[in-house]
Amino acid sequence: MPEPSPVLIVGSMALDSVRTPVGEVKDALGGAADYSSVAASFFAPVRLVGVVGDDFPREHLDYLTSRGIDLAGVEIVPGGRTFRWAGYYDFDLNIAHTLDTQLNVFADFQPKLPDAYRRAQYVFLANIDPELQLQVLSQVENPALTVCDTMNFWIEGKPDALKEVLRRVDIAFMNDAEARQLTGKLSIIKAAKALQDLGPKTVIIKKGEHGALLFHGGQHFAAPSYPLEDIADPTGAGDSFAGGFIGYVASRGDTSMATLRKAVVYGSVLASYNVEDFSLNRMRRLTDADIAARYRAFQEIAYFEAMDEATV
Amino acid sequence: MPEPSPVLIVGSMALDSVRTPVGEVKDALGGAADYSSVAASFFAPVRLVGVVGDDFPREHLDYLTSRGIDLAGVEIVPGGRTFRWAGYYDFDLNIAHTLDTQLNVFADFQPKLPDAYRRAQYVFLANIDPELQLQVLSQVENPALTVCDTMNFWIEGKPDALKEVLRRVDIAFMNDAEARQLTGKLSIIKAAKALQDLGPKTVIIKKGEHGALLFHGGQHFAAPSYPLEDIADPTGAGDSFAGGFIGYVASRGDTSMATLRKAVVYGSVLASYNVEDFSLNRMRRLTDADIAARYRAFQEIAYFEAMDEATV
Repeated sequence: MPEPSPVLIVGSMALDSVRTPVGEVKDALGGAADYSSVAASFFAPVRLVGVVGDDFPREHLDYLTSRGIDLAGVEIVPGGRTFRWAGYYDFDLNIAHTLDTQLNVFADFQPKLPDAYRRAQYVFLANIDPELQLQVLSQVENPALTVCDTMNFWIEGKPDALKEVLRRVDIAFMNDAEARQLTGKLSIIKAAKALQDLGPKTVIIKKGEHGALLFHGGQHFAAPSYPLEDIADPTGAGDSFAGGFIGYVASRGDTSMATLRKAVVYGSVLASYNVEDFSLNRMRRLTDADIAARYRAFQEIAYFEAMDEATV
Repeated sequence: MPEPSPVLIVGSMALDSVRTPVGEVKDALGGAADYSSVAASFFAPVRLVGVVGDDFPREHLDYLTSRGIDLAGVEIVPGGRTFRWAGYYDFDLNIAHTLDTQLNVFADFQPKLPDAYRRAQYVFLANIDPELQLQVLSQVENPALTVCDTMNFWIEGKPDALKEVLRRVDIAFMNDAEARQLTGKLSIIKAAKALQDLGPKTVIIKKGEHGALLFHGGQHFAAPSYPLEDIADPTGAGDSFAGGFIGYVASRGDTSMATLRKAVVYGSVLASYNVEDFSLNRMRRLTDADIAARYRAFQEIAYFEAMDEATV
């Protein structure tokens, strides 16, 4: 078993105020980079690049450090205020309603990689301005694997920069609606292939309650979703999915189809736990045994026997 | 290997006129009982109960007979006109737009089982009026397995009769929208459990491009969908899915979870082929080798390795 390579993660660090039908939190730890870094930390060391104000609670930084997350790349702006998002989910937990977005110090974020980060082998560009994602790519020297996420906001606002990112990464994450929006294809299969044509050899489509699809060259894998009856808060599901994915790949040190399939399942495991509680609360008490148990549950959900050759 | 038991199938036999973005057919062989019987016939003998007018082309009856489908239960009404459906699909193939429905002889359909059919072990009640489904159930003597399908029309129009059917069958098929509509649960997991609470030990949720879910007692199986890029005509997908399912179960003669999982995959195989062409045209030229090849493709799509115990 090789030593896991560190994963470089760049993205938003936030304080979220979220209300769902089962409860609410105020100014809780959030942001794509926080969710994905903690998820990845179950598999590999993480090097985080982000920005916060000096209002960002010390306890959150301590928690991230306790997870093996290197914060040398986190800029703390003196007198600055941390990025805040406020929103709610109604009965349909697939739809996030934004009440307020305060970019604050995140508005001027210019990711600068500490020297030690530039030789990162595994790079995850969480959902941020694609122009910043390109800045990060220009600072890493010879990565083994680059992975990006994005959202509808950038598809609408900066499609050209986003397409340049797609030209340069190995793996792109997108949810099904985003993939359809960017490519103009209604069929998710056609949309995924159109995304591959834009650059990334591998495309991973997140479908929420319908699981996830992996397209790798001409190969295809479909992961089921975990049958959760009660979801507390869907915030960060996609980020913890991507974080678990790249953390596992880094822990293996290879990008074979077999490893990518397992990584999708580990990502699904992390995402399915994450939505069981608000903020990163479920991940805070998550154990390796929990992860193993749910991985086995995914196997049970997806398993069916080979054909009886005599029947057909 | 036991001799496959015959499957009793009751439902609509129709002549469909369908237009999709890639073509159209007029007065083509259709109807839930025709699709499901032909799909089941790849695995087990079928005994069909339905009604047509004497305008129903002889060649369709000959084709069904050639598939090992016993037509002793098919009533041919002299001077009667066969049930006709006309509709179209636009860009979104998930939505069928009805142009015209002529019930004709189907309006007075009173399913009467020939004596030899009453001891059927495997019974599939395709999508028809739930009061007729109940009539069929009262005529079968001691079935090993009863399976029903339905549609939004009956959920809205005859919910009480439909619930009585659900109390009396072993397995219920429904698509995700129908399951949500009948139970009032937005979560598909909660909806499936609410359906189980109404009676059937086993519930199968059809999700189209997102595959299918099997709930059996407290167990759960998720089947992927086949990544088709081009769908000619989605008509009959659910019927061929259910037909392939029950045909395979009858061929095995057991209703273990392992068999039900495989039956869901065989059903998915039949449905995925069926939508490749209009009417039953793809099933007309389908071979056992085709079925075997696609079953293996489903295995490849769903497979991932067990955990590395050393990692987590």
